[in-house]
Amino acid sequence: MGAHADDSSFPPVHFETHPDRYRHWRLEFPQEYGGAVARLVMDVRENEGLRPGYPLKLNSYDLGVDIELADALLRVRFEHPQVKALVFTSGKDRIFCSGANIYMLGSSTHGFKVNFCKFTNETRLYLEEMSAETGVPSLAALAGTASGGGYELAIACDEILLCEDGTSAVSLPEAPLLGVLPGTGGLTRLVDKRKIRRDVADVFSTVAEGVRGKRALEWALVDEAPGKKEFEAAVKRRLEAMVLRSKRRPMRAVKLEPLGAERRYVKVDLDEKARKATLTLRAPEGAEPQTPDQLAKAGSSAWAIRAWRELDDALLDLRFNHPGVSVLALQTSGDPERVLAVDAMLLAHEDDGLVREVTLLMKRVLKRLDNMAKSLFALVTPESCFAGSMLEVALAADRIYMLDDPDGKSALRLSRLSAGPLPMGNGLTRLQSRFLREPERVGRALEHEGALDTKAALAAGLVTFAPDDIDWDDEIRIAFEERASMSPDAMTGMEASLRYGGPETMETKIFGRLTAWQNWIFQRPNAVGPRGALTLYGRPERPEFDFNRT
Amino acid sequence: MGAHADDSSFPPVHFETHPDRYRHWRLEFPQEYGGAVARLVMDVRENEGLRPGYPLKLNSYDLGVDIELADALLRVRFEHPQVKALVFTSGKDRIFCSGANIYMLGSSTHGFKVNFCKFTNETRLYLEEMSAETGVPSLAALAGTASGGGYELAIACDEILLCEDGTSAVSLPEAPLLGVLPGTGGLTRLVDKRKIRRDVADVFSTVAEGVRGKRALEWALVDEAPGKKEFEAAVKRRLEAMVLRSKRRPMRAVKLEPLGAERRYVKVDLDEKARKATLTLRAPEGAEPQTPDQLAKAGSSAWAIRAWRELDDALLDLRFNHPGVSVLALQTSGDPERVLAVDAMLLAHEDDGLVREVTLLMKRVLKRLDNMAKSLFALVTPESCFAGSMLEVALAADRIYMLDDPDGKSALRLSRLSAGPLPMGNGLTRLQSRFLREPERVGRALEHEGALDTKAALAAGLVTFAPDDIDWDDEIRIAFEERASMSPDAMTGMEASLRYGGPETMETKIFGRLTAWQNWIFQRPNAVGPRGALTLYGRPERPEFDFNRT
Repeated sequence: MGAHADDSSFPPVHFETHPDRYRHWRLEFPQEYGGAVARLVMDVRENEGLRPGYPLKLNSYDLGVDIELADALLRVRFEHPQVKALVFTSGKDRIFCSGANIYMLGSSTHGFKVNFCKFTNETRLYLEEMSAETGVPSLAALAGTASGGGYELAIACDEILLCEDGTSAVSLPEAPLLGVLPGTGGLTRLVDKRKIRRDVADVFSTVAEGVRGKRALEWALVDEAPGKKEFEAAVKRRLEAMVLRSKRRPMRAVKLEPLGAERRYVKVDLDEKARKATLTLRAPEGAEPQTPDQLAKAGSSAWAIRAWRELDDALLDLRFNHPGVSVLALQTSGDPERVLAVDAMLLAHEDDGLVREVTLLMKRVLKRLDNMAKSLFALVTPESCFAGSMLEVALAADRIYMLDDPDGKSALRLSRLSAGPLPMGNGLTRLQSRFLREPERVGRALEHEGALDTKAALAAGLVTFAPDDIDWDDEIRIAFEERASMSPDAMTGMEASLRYGGPETMETKIFGRLTAWQNWIFQRPNAVGPRGALTLYGRPERPEFDFNRT
Repeated sequence: MGAHADDSSFPPVHFETHPDRYRHWRLEFPQEYGGAVARLVMDVRENEGLRPGYPLKLNSYDLGVDIELADALLRVRFEHPQVKALVFTSGKDRIFCSGANIYMLGSSTHGFKVNFCKFTNETRLYLEEMSAETGVPSLAALAGTASGGGYELAIACDEILLCEDGTSAVSLPEAPLLGVLPGTGGLTRLVDKRKIRRDVADVFSTVAEGVRGKRALEWALVDEAPGKKEFEAAVKRRLEAMVLRSKRRPMRAVKLEPLGAERRYVKVDLDEKARKATLTLRAPEGAEPQTPDQLAKAGSSAWAIRAWRELDDALLDLRFNHPGVSVLALQTSGDPERVLAVDAMLLAHEDDGLVREVTLLMKRVLKRLDNMAKSLFALVTPESCFAGSMLEVALAADRIYMLDDPDGKSALRLSRLSAGPLPMGNGLTRLQSRFLREPERVGRALEHEGALDTKAALAAGLVTFAPDDIDWDDEIRIAFEERASMSPDAMTGMEASLRYGGPETMETKIFGRLTAWQNWIFQRPNAVGPRGALTLYGRPERPEFDFNRT
């Protein structure tokens, strides 16, 4: 079961970083492209892993490496609007990236492995979103071998160049070498993104040593396999073409200031004994920018950026540092008019580059919320501010409790942000996902003018339960107690099924089908038992399998 | 981990049965509907479980009960063409069905649980196919409580009636009571078939005692909740309406004779030491029916029925009785012209009721093959007969090896059966699933006239590898040895991901997302450990959970 019974012996994981402090990546803007290309150079420092005990050899990565990558992508979005294409390269000779560090995986708890994979999956999906939505496509320039998670990073890029130098290869050795899956989207992207023939994908995924240039090209695993002499020219040609076809909108740069120790808009109250945390998102408190120019000027202190960055940080903190929390109470506070004003600005200027980037940030944070392995109960009271973008937080919840207060002051307010700009991973809005049975309710809710009080919200299907003030305290208390008493595994599997009704996308296939199988395998003795393949990797003993097929 | 280390101490499971030998179901044809309705009465005999140790109380079921149900559905299709609607009822008072027997689950190996769930899932999907494709819709007449798998059976029907008698309820108590999922499609059908609002589904799936008539109707969990006095009339009204709107085509009955001990068209050679089995499907040997009338006359001895029933039986036998087999070599033999003649007959008379039923049988058997947790390698040599419907067996494989013989006698032959009538669970044909990247290859392959020799098959993308006769033996031997040496869990997860590229359907969501999560949970100590909820069910001790959320 891995070396560590739990993760509490380690210091908490922090997700904030800055290019000046990167240890494993360099974010460069090569002069030859006049600033239009960001180069992400992976150059992992072996001895600076997040936790002790596993040298990060051969450009292998752990969570710390991926936190920097996620940060770099966010910086390019906000701080470097001139960038129109990304290129991934390696700072090491002959190796691009050898994937997630095996000793790190082998020594991690099941829960940490699962959370690590979820975060790396999100980062790669967000890289793809940068191409699809921001107009910044990416190129993997593999002048060395990309194996496992290294190739999974490459396959998350739009295009892959592999140097035909007689040694560089791409490979997914997880199944044959480690008895686990290429679970950071690898298998799904093979057949769903690159649409590689299933039998070819089968062969590729079982050949530990991988496939080199010419064959990799034949099998559509890469897009071009130039020789050593032609490699740099090919990289340049492809990047210049990407820059030319980029549809990135012009925008003013916004420097992402450190969030610092104090959160302004998000509060998390932990009640570890009750396995509960209360997360409160606050509305803006003062005047917020009314134009994109004002937004650029306000920069990362604008509510629309800061509050959502804080929310993202809080969610990641809850995932990694508070596994004992089973249920999140989702609350909001503040003046709904101020939120609706922000929404109105974002909607009025949706074609503006910065406004679009801010909306995409909200979208990604809400997806992070959808993907929490915690039960989510939203609580609506007269003090709440479930309006516009903040209402999406409630719509992401497994249940919504709304106080039926005698004065009718509890209220929900919709904005057009719920009509499309903030879709879930399945491509539907949260309203569409909610009303699969009665799709006409989506439009009706959106057309409603003004606030919906409890009775109206209940009638509109937006609320699960509406206890009055006599019952509220007891009902809420019992709901949380009951939920927190149930098998956390059953809750995770149940929520993963009920939250994603309707269509599936590559994204939901990665988190549903692929991740669920990987989690199963991460629990099986053939991988993580004392004689399992993951446990024994790098040791002289060979793994011993229970060969019964299941 | 359950009481039994393996299943080999039990006699092998047999899948053939007959209504005369049913112990748990009665297949009746009530006079009042003039034979147009088949009534399936569940009346489980407590002490006749498939294995000892768990009384089947309260109409709970085990694999033996479900084998009878699967048989009954097949009988209605072939032997009772006058049937235009199905109704499920219970032979017990106050209980419809209490789901899969918990003690059976608790005392089964992980592998058996997984295979049991897969089979019950298939049976329920085939019930839905009977409605969608054969035109025989079904009604669940719940005059008592349907819990867990009992409600999952109901929700697989087109319509659900729940008697409003003050006690009868529907429920999915798996998560709150047992720490596992309603994994026989329950969660998926809640949100994907009945499209129940996700928060309502969340509440319903965590309320162990379930929901009674009026509220069940409000929540769309059932379609009608008549009182005790009105119940029988409501059943009758709905069944008569179903019969009226049934689009079932007229056909002559075909009695399904017992397959007997000797298989005529399917041979399985086990090499347990090599973890390999060779499955050979034989083409027809003599003249086969050339018209639907002749087909009806030939009955279940016709190749198109018998060979595919045998194949189905062999696949189930391999799943349940030979878990040690990791890789299947898929082979064929016989005269391709005879297969193509059968295909031509089926295609020429595709509107005929019986012909359609035969084609649907083939379709379901091929889906069973797609869903094998065994690696599938097809071997094409001059002795093979991969033609028409038999070619689909190769297209279901993870890899196709075709001998590049000097005389060009190895051959593939396509028929129009590959163009639509035999889709996979994802709704695509196997050719479409194969050529997601180059969809134009689908039409090109189908338009090819005559046999494709090895070079042509390779060029058409239909073959993975084509070793010549010098390399063949070694390459095949090594391929099987390598495959059989890999972690069986990794292979299962990998194949589940690579076989289903492209769109997802409710069916693939059940086998992908839901089943994968359930398998994960079935492996977790919170369910199956010594203090797990499934293990302790029915005992005075309360389960002890590791409450860390993952």
